Amino acid sequence: MTKNIYLDYAAATPIEPQVLKSMAPYFDQKFYNASAQYSAARQVAADLMVARAKVANWLGARPSEVIFTAGGTEANNLALHGIMQAFPDSNLIVSAIEHESVLEPAKHYSHQIAPVKVDGQVDIVKLVKLINDQTVLVSIMYANNEIGTIEPIKQIANEIKGLVKQRQKAGNSRPLYFHVDACQAANYLDLHVKGLGVDMMTINSGKIYGPKQCGALFIKASTIIEPQILGGGQEFNRRSGTENVAAVVGFAEALNLAQTGRQTEARRLKKLQDIFFEKLSQRLPTTQINGSLKQRLPNNVHLTIPGQDNETLMMRLDDHGIQCAVGSACSASNDEPSHVLKSIGLSDKAARASLRFTMGRHTTESDIIKTVDALVASCQLD
Amino acid sequence: MTKNIYLDYAAATPIEPQVLKSMAPYFDQKFYNASAQYSAARQVAADLMVARAKVANWLGARPSEVIFTAGGTEANNLALHGIMQAFPDSNLIVSAIEHESVLEPAKHYSHQIAPVKVDGQVDIVKLVKLINDQTVLVSIMYANNEIGTIEPIKQIANEIKGLVKQRQKAGNSRPLYFHVDACQAANYLDLHVKGLGVDMMTINSGKIYGPKQCGALFIKASTIIEPQILGGGQEFNRRSGTENVAAVVGFAEALNLAQTGRQTEARRLKKLQDIFFEKLSQRLPTTQINGSLKQRLPNNVHLTIPGQDNETLMMRLDDHGIQCAVGSACSASNDEPSHVLKSIGLSDKAARASLRFTMGRHTTESDIIKTVDALVASCQLD
Repeated sequence: MTKNIYLDYAAATPIEPQVLKSMAPYFDQKFYNASAQYSAARQVAADLMVARAKVANWLGARPSEVIFTAGGTEANNLALHGIMQAFPDSNLIVSAIEHESVLEPAKHYSHQIAPVKVDGQVDIVKLVKLINDQTVLVSIMYANNEIGTIEPIKQIANEIKGLVKQRQKAGNSRPLYFHVDACQAANYLDLHVKGLGVDMMTINSGKIYGPKQCGALFIKASTIIEPQILGGGQEFNRRSGTENVAAVVGFAEALNLAQTGRQTEARRLKKLQDIFFEKLSQRLPTTQINGSLKQRLPNNVHLTIPGQDNETLMMRLDDHGIQCAVGSACSASNDEPSHVLKSIGLSDKAARASLRFTMGRHTTESDIIKTVDALVASCQLD
Repeated sequence: MTKNIYLDYAAATPIEPQVLKSMAPYFDQKFYNASAQYSAARQVAADLMVARAKVANWLGARPSEVIFTAGGTEANNLALHGIMQAFPDSNLIVSAIEHESVLEPAKHYSHQIAPVKVDGQVDIVKLVKLINDQTVLVSIMYANNEIGTIEPIKQIANEIKGLVKQRQKAGNSRPLYFHVDACQAANYLDLHVKGLGVDMMTINSGKIYGPKQCGALFIKASTIIEPQILGGGQEFNRRSGTENVAAVVGFAEALNLAQTGRQTEARRLKKLQDIFFEKLSQRLPTTQINGSLKQRLPNNVHLTIPGQDNETLMMRLDDHGIQCAVGSACSASNDEPSHVLKSIGLSDKAARASLRFTMGRHTTESDIIKTVDALVASCQLD
């Protein structure tokens, strides 16, 4: 770690030393193709199954329901394209604040956008009204990557279960699947798919101190889905390509660490988040916090500072060694104001006065105090 | 490396120490999201561009023509689905011995299979006859993963260029693209796309002593192609997902090493291949070599030993510490006789008496002599 104060953990996380250690043997010693038949390769295939079972365990799923992918974006694409291609005359519903890797695939199909309330929570009543007899898929994220809002997944799942029952009574054989993008949730929230009531769930290794371009899509056993990447039939014929055993082993270890420590770490970060909010209200009293204060990831601080320009602030903070985000890194390359902030009612002007700070394992109270000091100084430069 | 004699380099390669060293800083130091805007992240984006330029350099391509993917399978899928979805009323031609990651996507579209001759080389006359006015894509591998046959890419490219000219004269505006899967070629053959005359080319890091689940598709600038994995718009909007900078940097380093040393290494392996063939003809004179002897990768030895069962032999060799392949690892999980061996005229019985040995950087003459000894001993056990 450099001496910078890194506050962009929602964009990327450093690989945890223990995770890297678990990966190391697979780079140049146990490098075998897991589909090969000699005993050393079969051992690698066995190690892959252990990793799969570890991931499945935290989801309360069967190992065969865990499909490893090259990250969260691919997993979201598999969920959306895979279901919509399996049910061509259907439609899907996504929320207005989904990640681009959900919104962009959705555009290829008949779809409706479920609005969110000003606190960033999906409006369940409006969501339910959008679901019709042709709807085959609802995709809602577990926690938002920009404003950190935690979505009411269990309640939505219950509504969907009710609709599925009605549908079965009415003799409509079309399934109604519920997909949840849990990329930002896996560090802090429970992931058990039965308790949540979801049919598919995306997890992303690169956001939980594991290797990048590794992730998984949980796909409930009965789900009818078209594979997207075709070839040798790896991942139970649902995603082909020579397995990246090093990354998968690291991902499983990272998920294990994240889920084992999630409550302790969430409490620790909640305290830092409270300090951050409190200092801001004292020092920059016109600051607005975006997104629900209650249903919120403990590591997310998303602000609008009226009258300021977020890119200027971000660069001034960078000069202080403080690294934060303007929008999400995933869409940082285009200059459009964030669709998430628009969805919760921010004007373009307010969106351009907004910054995201996302804390993580290496963030300390002293970092937060320094950050607020630097933010105040940066705002006063004008 | 273990003390085993590893002869399955076509299935997987160990990461070269120098490659791993180049990747190391990006795991936990320079772990930033390459789309983030602070200076440390912009430096990572710059490093990514350097890696892209390195890969482009070996292809004689522009950096913006190199699209990083999660391996060869995804790159082949992008080429086939991407072109066929951009030109919906078209057809494509693939050879009978393509990898599954070409054959399986092809099945989703109107397609024809170009046959190969008994030596494994594509029959160019028959291939050309299959191309009609609706053909938009021809996909032929540079070198085969099972029998090591090198395909006549330049000649095919010339034929295609002639057809493109005829098409333009006739006022047919449909393009006719030529895709080449170079996954097995990149260790030993020249990859310059202009000299070869190709519009798209797949390379795979995991087969050239780089990290697995990393690769690239060269896409010539003018090519019209639909992206397959949608989201934040990374890779020039042609493949979304937070970039795996560690893997990409390693891949570029691996390609650099492979291409710099390819002629020396090819000569070294050719000598070992000659020794292997010579010893076999002396010790197991009924053995048949499959695939062209002349147009052949220098690391590939593919045999049929009449009267033997390949799975039994493979396991006996494994007991001797010698690791080789029955079919290709990519399709090893199903029990069908190889489509490649069928295509060159082998009976199911002959296919089930066939073994693949693929040599690599750590293979020595002593390994080959021990292998032939062990093979002779294994054959004589019955």
